[in-house]
Amino acid sequence: MREGYREELDDINASLVGMANAVGSAVSTATTALLDADVALADLVIAGDKQIDATRESIEQRCFTLLARQQPVAGDLRTITTAMRIVSDLERMGDLAEHIAKVARMRFPEQAVPQEVRSALLEMGHIADLLITKTATVIATRDVEAAQELETDDDAMDRLHRGLFRALLKDDWPHGIETAIDITLLGRYYERFADHAVSVARRVVYLVTGEHAPVPAPEA
Amino acid sequence: MREGYREELDDINASLVGMANAVGSAVSTATTALLDADVALADLVIAGDKQIDATRESIEQRCFTLLARQQPVAGDLRTITTAMRIVSDLERMGDLAEHIAKVARMRFPEQAVPQEVRSALLEMGHIADLLITKTATVIATRDVEAAQELETDDDAMDRLHRGLFRALLKDDWPHGIETAIDITLLGRYYERFADHAVSVARRVVYLVTGEHAPVPAPEA
Repeated sequence: MREGYREELDDINASLVGMANAVGSAVSTATTALLDADVALADLVIAGDKQIDATRESIEQRCFTLLARQQPVAGDLRTITTAMRIVSDLERMGDLAEHIAKVARMRFPEQAVPQEVRSALLEMGHIADLLITKTATVIATRDVEAAQELETDDDAMDRLHRGLFRALLKDDWPHGIETAIDITLLGRYYERFADHAVSVARRVVYLVTGEHAPVPAPEA
Repeated sequence: MREGYREELDDINASLVGMANAVGSAVSTATTALLDADVALADLVIAGDKQIDATRESIEQRCFTLLARQQPVAGDLRTITTAMRIVSDLERMGDLAEHIAKVARMRFPEQAVPQEVRSALLEMGHIADLLITKTATVIATRDVEAAQELETDDDAMDRLHRGLFRALLKDDWPHGIETAIDITLLGRYYERFADHAVSVARRVVYLVTGEHAPVPAPEA
């Protein structure tokens, strides 16, 4: 029994990695849908979020069952409670990818993203992709150094986010309020996506080292 | 020992209620700070969020210790894992109150909220207050009917949120992009605040009935 238990712990971790990969695919696809005004891709992301939500339910349930049946202590207990939190972050990241896709869908056949901020959003999408890829690796390997890299990537995301506001606030912004609202929300979605990736990484660091990462700079 | 354990469970629940009350105070104060351009109140909310975060840490740690020492099963186990999730929602609601206060602070001594949307934001603040007050009651009493009321309040919040966008998109919006960005983000903060309140209520319903609430309408 105890061996089946160890296997189940490993299986849960593998499911978390699979879920992170699904979220990575969702955010990449959402970014493409957004920048190419591709409504079929947007719909793919929106439909796919149900699967991500179902995976969350399933992992949570398996963690709960493991807690109930095996009554783990110490490290194993910490592993399971950490998995339960990571799965929340990942699900939320899936929601944010879906929100991005919905902006693309709402403006279709128009482009939601005007030329002035296209490269910034492309770059934000790129960093989101990088972050979730690293997050999956961190979950799989518990690599504390890789986990700390995510903080740097998140700083880059924050810089891009601030740049987006600067672009909106230029005197000659020609696209009106509706586009400004879209861009404001999109910026927020990517920024929150990055925050959740960092949150996952910090949980893994805490699991491995027993130490909390340095207190984060207050979110803008 | 078993009796101390029951008391500790009750204590944790009381701490959750206390935390919900602190979050309620934060969001009310943030709304006042915002609508009165009162920077001292904004600073109070911003400083107070550290206490809310510390309460989260403390409750999480107590839940973990209880899991490790008492190895609860069935209902008690479910109570503890639910508490661990509720505490995340409440902490995030505290963050959102802080974000609202930060908008007030950033625009001080100017008013962040122009006359056109003042009453909508006042009403959103009012509903946020109502929601967190009910959330505290639901945590304290596990009243499933009260929990379901939160869904209706959340619908009201969503309507106000949509109304906010309509106000921004009127042809004669006279306040420019910066104010539109502020209002967009403020709307998002209040809406997310309500979502988290509903999430807490649903967790309590699940704890009591073993049934998930109906699948939520997709978030706009």
